[in-house]
Amino acid sequence: MSPFHDEDALVKEIARHFPRVRAHELRLGIGDDAALWKARPGFASILTSDWFLEGSHFLREKHPPDSVGWKCLARAASDIAAMGGTPRCFLLNLALPAAATGRWLKSFLGGLRRAASSLDCALVGGDTTRSERILVSVTVIGEIPEGQEVPRSGAGPGDRLYVSGTLGEAEHGLRLLRKSRNKVRSTNKALRKHLYPEPRVALGRWLAQRNLASAMMDVSDGLSSDLPRLCSASGVGARIDSGKLPLLHGVSAGFAEELALHGGDDYELLFAVSPRKARAIPAKFHNLRLTQIGKITTERGAQILRRNGSVELLRAAGWDPFRQKK
Amino acid sequence: MSPFHDEDALVKEIARHFPRVRAHELRLGIGDDAALWKARPGFASILTSDWFLEGSHFLREKHPPDSVGWKCLARAASDIAAMGGTPRCFLLNLALPAAATGRWLKSFLGGLRRAASSLDCALVGGDTTRSERILVSVTVIGEIPEGQEVPRSGAGPGDRLYVSGTLGEAEHGLRLLRKSRNKVRSTNKALRKHLYPEPRVALGRWLAQRNLASAMMDVSDGLSSDLPRLCSASGVGARIDSGKLPLLHGVSAGFAEELALHGGDDYELLFAVSPRKARAIPAKFHNLRLTQIGKITTERGAQILRRNGSVELLRAAGWDPFRQKK
Repeated sequence: MSPFHDEDALVKEIARHFPRVRAHELRLGIGDDAALWKARPGFASILTSDWFLEGSHFLREKHPPDSVGWKCLARAASDIAAMGGTPRCFLLNLALPAAATGRWLKSFLGGLRRAASSLDCALVGGDTTRSERILVSVTVIGEIPEGQEVPRSGAGPGDRLYVSGTLGEAEHGLRLLRKSRNKVRSTNKALRKHLYPEPRVALGRWLAQRNLASAMMDVSDGLSSDLPRLCSASGVGARIDSGKLPLLHGVSAGFAEELALHGGDDYELLFAVSPRKARAIPAKFHNLRLTQIGKITTERGAQILRRNGSVELLRAAGWDPFRQKK
Repeated sequence: MSPFHDEDALVKEIARHFPRVRAHELRLGIGDDAALWKARPGFASILTSDWFLEGSHFLREKHPPDSVGWKCLARAASDIAAMGGTPRCFLLNLALPAAATGRWLKSFLGGLRRAASSLDCALVGGDTTRSERILVSVTVIGEIPEGQEVPRSGAGPGDRLYVSGTLGEAEHGLRLLRKSRNKVRSTNKALRKHLYPEPRVALGRWLAQRNLASAMMDVSDGLSSDLPRLCSASGVGARIDSGKLPLLHGVSAGFAEELALHGGDDYELLFAVSPRKARAIPAKFHNLRLTQIGKITTERGAQILRRNGSVELLRAAGWDPFRQKK
């Protein structure tokens, strides 16, 4: 595939990688001024838009382009899952240097198509331009039966706090990737979670349909950054028990705990459940572990009960681009 | 206003600049994982997403930040107007260097708020991060009564081709801005059109409601780039008459024609109208000039009838980031 000479050719190349949009919902797609979208009767639409930028969210020399394609959609879709909704279609804004319009683009589109297919989420439009660095902005439109959405703001004192999967795994994968001198093969489980995260759509939908979660969000910047946001939105506090965190195996306990508290990019769901509904939460949801890690409290702020019995304020040390020094 | 120390503070600063979202449509806004949107019964949603990047779409040292704020929303809203729809809400993805989080951001948000207010289009979400250059990606969600949307693809041979306003004015404004050594005061009309374009929402809606246009798009990259796209989507050709183009006054005729054919950023509407409906098109729509510039033909390709009587192929020389050399 040769570099593109104009924007129309790039749009055609992107469209070529994607199957036709579902005509009953999306009557106009790529190439028109805008896309048309109609939620089913009784459903509301959910809108979310996420950056995925070279240098901030991925490194061109380290991250395989198909992972960039997969992850830019997966992480935006995770925001839909965190509301209890189902991703349906997306807009892709892509800015590329000339050097990335050949093999890089082909592999990127391959990964993006795999994610779109896995999520049953159709590409319906977007914008392309040239830039010095690879820039991606993805907008996902999801659907949810009216009134079922789970906000961040509904947690009440006494609610049990749950998290899906393992925390810190993606951060561990990132560290492996950074340490490696060459491109790493994606057989390592932690690395796979960093490169190809799977948004917890089925779990989010299940919790929303059964009205089990009082508040929910996805853990994208790390528990120590995200839990205070849930608390702040709900006007409550939380206390988590370090002994209950679903830690990564194969590393020291202290390191695993650090990864679990501050590691980003896990895209697991963090949700609160009232005490009377807590017994409806299984230990596993389709092979995905669900762990009660603490409780919602009346005191403001997020606290952590350490293994030695001391209670400390949970200091936000997750990923924040405005706090980073690099 | 001091620079931001974390992303949450930046999100709060953005939210502070915008009035509360309309609760009946948007129950969740900035600060939750995603926004909820529900089109009115009988309406479809329109989705569009546009880049606005420092170095490609604006220059930090030349463009006032409030123009960047205004224009990033106005140009995306123009895509909604080009379908005949009404912009309703938008998502803002903003990536900033630390140096732009102070005065630059404040002025940017001021311009954005003015555009949002002028368009009655509410900010409902988005994403923020840090970057070396200022990067903006805006997604606008619009609304249109079901079945009223005007695509690019409906033009038929014999249809009259119209354009709103004056062509080439924004390009002239850009050239004035580039030539100036200092920041330019925005009293010049051409400069104002470049800095603060007004999407033709009322005109697009009027044409769609009355089913007057068989095909429509906005002229954003220049007539010579955009007209062939309308022709290609409709499977037709077009012939425009250079003597009929709505040219800029105060410059030479040849230069004005060059600007009208190839200048970008006008955000005027280009639309086709069947011969029997053409008399319903007024010479002015609320003070906005409407000009018949040519016809749709059966031959493929866009042609131009020159003043000397010769007919030439209209060569695309509008703005295309993948063809630019700079």
